[in-house]
Amino acid sequence: MCEASLSNDPGFGSVAIVGLGLVGTSIAKASARRWPRTRIVAVERNDDLSKTRGVDLVVLAAPVRANIARLRDLPEHLTPGAVVTDVGSTKRSIVAAADAFPSMAFIGGHPMAGNARGGAENARDDLFEGRPWILTPGTRHGEALRRLEEFIAGLGAVPHVMTPDLHDRFVGAVSHLPQLTASALMHVVGKLAGDAGLEIAGAGLHDTTRLAASPPEIWKDIAATNQDVLREALDQLIHTLTDMRDSLDTGEGLDAVFTSACRWRDALDRTR
Amino acid sequence: MCEASLSNDPGFGSVAIVGLGLVGTSIAKASARRWPRTRIVAVERNDDLSKTRGVDLVVLAAPVRANIARLRDLPEHLTPGAVVTDVGSTKRSIVAAADAFPSMAFIGGHPMAGNARGGAENARDDLFEGRPWILTPGTRHGEALRRLEEFIAGLGAVPHVMTPDLHDRFVGAVSHLPQLTASALMHVVGKLAGDAGLEIAGAGLHDTTRLAASPPEIWKDIAATNQDVLREALDQLIHTLTDMRDSLDTGEGLDAVFTSACRWRDALDRTR
Repeated sequence: MCEASLSNDPGFGSVAIVGLGLVGTSIAKASARRWPRTRIVAVERNDDLSKTRGVDLVVLAAPVRANIARLRDLPEHLTPGAVVTDVGSTKRSIVAAADAFPSMAFIGGHPMAGNARGGAENARDDLFEGRPWILTPGTRHGEALRRLEEFIAGLGAVPHVMTPDLHDRFVGAVSHLPQLTASALMHVVGKLAGDAGLEIAGAGLHDTTRLAASPPEIWKDIAATNQDVLREALDQLIHTLTDMRDSLDTGEGLDAVFTSACRWRDALDRTR
Repeated sequence: MCEASLSNDPGFGSVAIVGLGLVGTSIAKASARRWPRTRIVAVERNDDLSKTRGVDLVVLAAPVRANIARLRDLPEHLTPGAVVTDVGSTKRSIVAAADAFPSMAFIGGHPMAGNARGGAENARDDLFEGRPWILTPGTRHGEALRRLEEFIAGLGAVPHVMTPDLHDRFVGAVSHLPQLTASALMHVVGKLAGDAGLEIAGAGLHDTTRLAASPPEIWKDIAATNQDVLREALDQLIHTLTDMRDSLDTGEGLDAVFTSACRWRDALDRTR
């Protein structure tokens, strides 16, 4: 009876989480809630990867380039049949790194869930509830993909499968560019307004700059591994702001941008 | 008894509201709640200003340049002792226009309250609750200032007195620049991501672009009457984004901006 009920359980028997920030810790919590009998192995920054030996699923949950470094050291510790995934915000570079190890069942992953404030102290077991979780599988690991999809669905997320290229383009636009913009804006507004000016700010500034509380450290990696997409996106934003600046008197450029923005914002609202 | 109780009431006996959008209608509602016996005179876009004859307070609540046009036609209708204010988002231009009528007790005003969605249908009697409401009085109308401060405090707002210059600089930074940025960002993100990309967007994009739902029409006036401040602010933002774009590989520029932004965001949080 017990065996049968275990084998019906789509979860992994043991999961190593390498990196215990907001997302890694939230995965641990959500997993513990959904599959109380799954063994969670926490691998901190200075821990040896030998801790992952024998686990069924390894989740790399450090910043992107730390994940890539860990990935390269991982194969010697893996048990046959183990599945490896990550939760980094860019996918092309880690998928390319994983291609050097064709026997490893690696599937890139990216939960589109977070919090302006990072860190384990903000982790929640419902962080992924109803949120998209993108997977970028290679062609070789169909069974691993199926198991991983069941795992992330068990955490409450909605799996979306796409190529690393498309992921990086989409996420560059809907996540990385807004982050860079919110930080640039908060930096400039702070300099211009000072504490006295911030005193009279309304909800608009609070909303627009909420992301500026994000920890700086993870963003260097994201920018470096999605450079081409971000360069193009920043170019377009700079171009748009320049047009607006140059038509403040007539408001022509402003009007076109506001009208387009209002329509896209409606489209965004319809996705909720 | 009745007389005494009326004279203790800090409200105005009659208030004309010229322009019935989000703010104008919210003032009418908040005033009706606070002073049920005050007569509210609604002056719509096509109404004649003769409707304001005999009222104690005139509130100009149309877009900035429409307010300025109305202001110039107002003096012939005003009863001696009447107070005039506005709720426009820039103050230098309307205060300069009012200077041509030294006998009119005009005090510029700007409630720092709003809603990404404008319009009378979103008006609320608690829109101003706890929000700053800036007043930019001249030197001549001390009694009018005192009465107006009591009025806006009665609507739930917190009066802040400052010069039109300082107002336009502060508000250009904490309100106008974030609005232009949110609209530019939503325009670019929509073009780059399309509907399929928006599908996977997280809370970050929703927060950062909430202002992009603002109605375009009022922003032409704001941009035109705060041109110099906005040109400088946009220049600084473009400069910051350009630095970030040019250091995506090393992340140096990024790091400096993120660290500064994170500190200013903390300062902003402390104002709440």
